[in-house]
Amino acid sequence: MSLTAVGSIAFDSVRTPFGARDRMLGGSAVHFSLAASFFTDVRLVGPVGDDFGEEELAVLRARGVITDDIEHVEGGKTFFWRGHYEYDMNLAHTDETQLNVFGDFQPKLSDGSRGAEMLFLGNIQPQLQLEVREACGGAELAGLDSMNLWIETERDDLLKAIGKADYLLLNDAEIRMLTDETNLARAAHQVMEMGPRVVVAKRGEYGAALFTEDHPFAIPGYLLEDVRDPTGAGDSFAGGFLGYLDGQRAAGLSPFDFDSLRQAMAYGSVLASFNVEDFGTERVASLTMDEIAERLKHFRHITRFEA
Amino acid sequence: MSLTAVGSIAFDSVRTPFGARDRMLGGSAVHFSLAASFFTDVRLVGPVGDDFGEEELAVLRARGVITDDIEHVEGGKTFFWRGHYEYDMNLAHTDETQLNVFGDFQPKLSDGSRGAEMLFLGNIQPQLQLEVREACGGAELAGLDSMNLWIETERDDLLKAIGKADYLLLNDAEIRMLTDETNLARAAHQVMEMGPRVVVAKRGEYGAALFTEDHPFAIPGYLLEDVRDPTGAGDSFAGGFLGYLDGQRAAGLSPFDFDSLRQAMAYGSVLASFNVEDFGTERVASLTMDEIAERLKHFRHITRFEA
Repeated sequence: MSLTAVGSIAFDSVRTPFGARDRMLGGSAVHFSLAASFFTDVRLVGPVGDDFGEEELAVLRARGVITDDIEHVEGGKTFFWRGHYEYDMNLAHTDETQLNVFGDFQPKLSDGSRGAEMLFLGNIQPQLQLEVREACGGAELAGLDSMNLWIETERDDLLKAIGKADYLLLNDAEIRMLTDETNLARAAHQVMEMGPRVVVAKRGEYGAALFTEDHPFAIPGYLLEDVRDPTGAGDSFAGGFLGYLDGQRAAGLSPFDFDSLRQAMAYGSVLASFNVEDFGTERVASLTMDEIAERLKHFRHITRFEA
Repeated sequence: MSLTAVGSIAFDSVRTPFGARDRMLGGSAVHFSLAASFFTDVRLVGPVGDDFGEEELAVLRARGVITDDIEHVEGGKTFFWRGHYEYDMNLAHTDETQLNVFGDFQPKLSDGSRGAEMLFLGNIQPQLQLEVREACGGAELAGLDSMNLWIETERDDLLKAIGKADYLLLNDAEIRMLTDETNLARAAHQVMEMGPRVVVAKRGEYGAALFTEDHPFAIPGYLLEDVRDPTGAGDSFAGGFLGYLDGQRAAGLSPFDFDSLRQAMAYGSVLASFNVEDFGTERVASLTMDEIAERLKHFRHITRFEA
């Protein structure tokens, strides 16, 4: 089992009502990889600058993430994001973005990266997502994330990239925006006609919904009293979701089976819930499989009902 | 088993992208009563004018709702609401409100109404909710609904009324507004300190969350491709929720037991999902217990996961 994740590696400076951190390890591919690492072997592809060093690599390696394909751009600086959250933590306020080496990112894929069975195309330019998908022609499955920016500015390329994805993960508002259809279920079915067999709508604190040709599936967010930093929650969700499915696939089970998909939704939610409990990668980096299992059990207890 | 519901009886003129209806039967106590009628004996208390007649009463009676305490105000007109929804049906736009007889509503409670074991204090002036609660001193349990208007204008009376309620049902934004706390779980625990043992946060299409001293519970909304008119969804939810709990109570089970509460959340969600499938009371008025059971089964299928 192996999963190649392509996307941003960053330093984040974040302030929330519960504290602040300066230049901590972040980026969507980092959050994704740490979460997925509990279920499969993850190889992380993305660019960093001279300011990225052993300390950051050690966080990834401690979780078994293969860092050989992290590209060090000599003389460059790592992608940097500075933002804050008010008491309503559903909304991130961006104060500063420095694309740095991420602005000229041209993914370089080793044989190891190309050999993965599952591919995650993180939120980067759709044209790059297409190139990576082609370069990894041997990957059985691809998940794709994107954002409103690309829907607005690179719609044609994005539609092509979506056409090559098996799993599409977007915020619910983005799925509506992509299709110009406000009913989420109808919008998701329109997206499936573009290519993906599975569409996942991320709904922030409200959880997530999944759509397949046969059945939808909905899961609420895990209710938490202490949310310290929501940055990366959606990426941790995606990592738990696709990581679990790659593990299922490797075990000989269908990664499109409804029972696999529902468990993947639950694991994604659990990983996202840990992510937001502390700043940046702090909570997920120290997480154990036992804690994940315990939370999944409690999550089931506080969501199940009988028919 | 018996439940007295006090609140608004209305005529609604509603326009949505999927059609329009003029002066159809509506009002929060009507939607509540029809939903609750599947689980317990419901007595509806509220004022109507000369324009309210046998046709409207027949809809309620066909579902077994006891209409003896609907007060006919001679020479008066029934509460009237006109509104519309855009394609985003989460937001109701009010075009016209005529309080009419509802503006001078002073609940008159028969011995039958006073004798109910469960009381539902619909969204009316908090001072009236308090008076009704006192008049029905024999009722074991009371559920209470309210709205942002009363939080802003009648806060002191509302806090007193909440102090007399066992179950509080509000929109999640209203729970945050009431407590000035943005974390929903923390806000709900603050509300419990005001009196209620159970706090339910209604979250529109995203479902609902419930809080008790011991455990929270969360349920997503039932995913629908066809939402024709969301008016009354929250009231139908409340009716399914409290109606089911009164049925449990009558069967000798604790209406605060977590297993009862989780089932009540599921039945509330199912009733709300039927409510929005057609205009006004049209869908729920023709609903059968078999359809409810079938949807509950499907709802469980598309939300359950294993630990």
